[in-house]
Amino acid sequence: MARLKSSRNNFEYVAGNGLLHRRALLQRGAAFAGALGAGSGLATAAAAEPLVEAPWALEPGDPVPAYQTPSKFAKNVVRTLSNPNFEPRTSQSRAPHHLLDGMITPNGVFFTIVHDGVPAIDPSMHQLLIHGLVKQPLTFSYEALLRQPRTSRIAFIECGGNSAGLFSPEPLQTDVQGLHGLVSCAEWTGVKLSTLLNQTGIDPKAKWFVAEGTDAAHVVRSVPLAKALDDAMIALYQNGEPLMPGNGYPMRLLLPGYEGNMNIKYVRRIKLLSEPAFSYWESQVYTEPLPNGNAYNFYFVNEIKSFITSPSPGRDLTEPGFYEISGLAYSGKGRISQVLVSADGGKSWGKAALDGPVLSMAFTRFRMPWQWNGGPAVLQSRAFDEDGNVQPTRAEFVAARGQLPSVPPPLAFENHHFNAITSWAVNQGGQVRHVYA
Amino acid sequence: MARLKSSRNNFEYVAGNGLLHRRALLQRGAAFAGALGAGSGLATAAAAEPLVEAPWALEPGDPVPAYQTPSKFAKNVVRTLSNPNFEPRTSQSRAPHHLLDGMITPNGVFFTIVHDGVPAIDPSMHQLLIHGLVKQPLTFSYEALLRQPRTSRIAFIECGGNSAGLFSPEPLQTDVQGLHGLVSCAEWTGVKLSTLLNQTGIDPKAKWFVAEGTDAAHVVRSVPLAKALDDAMIALYQNGEPLMPGNGYPMRLLLPGYEGNMNIKYVRRIKLLSEPAFSYWESQVYTEPLPNGNAYNFYFVNEIKSFITSPSPGRDLTEPGFYEISGLAYSGKGRISQVLVSADGGKSWGKAALDGPVLSMAFTRFRMPWQWNGGPAVLQSRAFDEDGNVQPTRAEFVAARGQLPSVPPPLAFENHHFNAITSWAVNQGGQVRHVYA
Repeated sequence: MARLKSSRNNFEYVAGNGLLHRRALLQRGAAFAGALGAGSGLATAAAAEPLVEAPWALEPGDPVPAYQTPSKFAKNVVRTLSNPNFEPRTSQSRAPHHLLDGMITPNGVFFTIVHDGVPAIDPSMHQLLIHGLVKQPLTFSYEALLRQPRTSRIAFIECGGNSAGLFSPEPLQTDVQGLHGLVSCAEWTGVKLSTLLNQTGIDPKAKWFVAEGTDAAHVVRSVPLAKALDDAMIALYQNGEPLMPGNGYPMRLLLPGYEGNMNIKYVRRIKLLSEPAFSYWESQVYTEPLPNGNAYNFYFVNEIKSFITSPSPGRDLTEPGFYEISGLAYSGKGRISQVLVSADGGKSWGKAALDGPVLSMAFTRFRMPWQWNGGPAVLQSRAFDEDGNVQPTRAEFVAARGQLPSVPPPLAFENHHFNAITSWAVNQGGQVRHVYA
Repeated sequence: MARLKSSRNNFEYVAGNGLLHRRALLQRGAAFAGALGAGSGLATAAAAEPLVEAPWALEPGDPVPAYQTPSKFAKNVVRTLSNPNFEPRTSQSRAPHHLLDGMITPNGVFFTIVHDGVPAIDPSMHQLLIHGLVKQPLTFSYEALLRQPRTSRIAFIECGGNSAGLFSPEPLQTDVQGLHGLVSCAEWTGVKLSTLLNQTGIDPKAKWFVAEGTDAAHVVRSVPLAKALDDAMIALYQNGEPLMPGNGYPMRLLLPGYEGNMNIKYVRRIKLLSEPAFSYWESQVYTEPLPNGNAYNFYFVNEIKSFITSPSPGRDLTEPGFYEISGLAYSGKGRISQVLVSADGGKSWGKAALDGPVLSMAFTRFRMPWQWNGGPAVLQSRAFDEDGNVQPTRAEFVAARGQLPSVPPPLAFENHHFNAITSWAVNQGGQVRHVYA
């Protein structure tokens, strides 16, 4: 991360191919006039009073709805659907991260995966049962959970299959939404599972629990009891309001940092066990093959990861000049400590700014100022966490995990937990494409 | 805040009328069995396998939409509308805080005030002009702003008229939504105004700026230039997605901690001036009368405030036993340092737990465990910030500001900036009502 200076515009660079030191943004006058001011494409010199009344300035607007939704001019800021005709199979909806900014994913476009549609559950008919190796099995109604002591935290949830397209031997030509849209981040509010287990008591033989959803798919996953006693939550609210129907309404298990499907939606039972259940969902569906033909028995944690959301495919560059490189970083093992960004395919790196608050197991938004000279560039980001974990390069990841897009029958594993660096190539026309670099 | 112990259930109390020390929640066994376990109303003893398949467990659910909205069973978690028939006057929509939890207000129910309807603005036709006492007037298109350096922060916005019902001589019988629904909190992402002023340059004579909206109401407010150089932002995103139409799409001014109407929505111009404009909106509409017949010239900051969202009117108690007292605290002058809660009308106080992250000029969610004995109670909260400010009692506030619900013509001021303690009385039946105490 050598600091370079250019006599051309007096900007201070932190790495090759135009990555700027953040101090550059505080310079006034001549430097800005060239990079960000009039004539840069980021602003236009204006006459003193050039205002023209637009149509919406001359007549009343629309009525106010009880529940507001986005502008019709933002109609592309929605999820893409893997199963738009609702055939009898899994439906994935992906968050449009290339069109979002910040650390919160709004509820309307929070990603969902449902294996048998979105259930319409009447909370007055729904109960959570906690049983198995407990001293007193208990059931909790929705209303009873609303009386329990609650807590809030911001946490991402990521599908184990997010970014699975990067196992492809050739780089898929799709966008951030297509490659990384199966992760989102929200504020969750609910009752810690430990609070409820204090009420049931725990048989000392209990070492695991299974959680089961009440919807038709009845997803069942095994979780170590230690997670229940740590930060597991029965979540009731998502970004302040009751959970969205696709995200588990009226209640879901939240296991911060653990792969999405374990955060059982529509949860109706927690059963304490002495050993894992090896359910269909964990032995057949959500499993990770290895190059030697074996597979991980369990793979819970979403490892450290980052990707650039802008520029990115579909967010092409329009002309040489200033751009902000921005993206998301997160780790299932703690707080992000730093994110490095490269514009030359990893030859040199600059340290990105992180928007606060930087929270454990939550999205962290990173930003890097960039002066694009109009030539080819390869944009990459690499995340580090306070637990000492470093996002792997693609070469490191493939060496450890192989590059199998899937395993053929009879095993029929899909591959999961891709977390290596993503590369976006910018060509001289400003087009952005997915490449392996 | 004497610590009291009860031999009845071994709970540790922090204040009178049942306020529990948080350690009580960590006790296992007998204490929980009485307070939160089986038979408490918060849980029911269960047989080992009492699960019955509900209708939604037996058939596929609904299709997945591109933009998801709440469950039909949460249809009451919406805003109330002051002008449901859309007559030609101001329309207020209030956030349902008694049905929300956490610190983020979701975009669907974020409060709005529009003076002439919600404009449907095409961002490709919208521009922001910065002019007046600058060196180089500039206009910024929406696309150009998306290329500028951006930042994110979580901040509340509160209408100066929020809680104005508490100026009433008699306590209004309405709920949290009706009394305090004109405040909300979101993550905002955009371009700092100082970044844009670096590009225009600033004439040393500039001391103020006015911001103007492009919608038909053309709200204009004067703001000290120091705020522009501090934390003012041209916000483009709200909780991650483009701003909601009612909250300023495609862009609004964000002035953290300053009253809502100054955070000009649909902003089309920032003009630097040597003195304030004394616009219609600031001299006639958003002004605060004083008991002596004078009025504040300007009143920008939303002072420190808190209120309890549960229990609250409409969230009655169903039976004696454990409840969590929870609410929101915020200050336009910094971070919340502590929130005290009383169950005996202010005779004794216990310190509430604060959910993190606790951020400057953002909502802070507070929580206090409470064992309701079935007798009368008066619930209050009182907030403190790191800047040394203390939420006033009602008596203190009325002494300083008077109790005028409004000022008759020709002045015709409405009153604003009520921030004293709110009191909820619980009667022996568990009903919760608004009282002055």
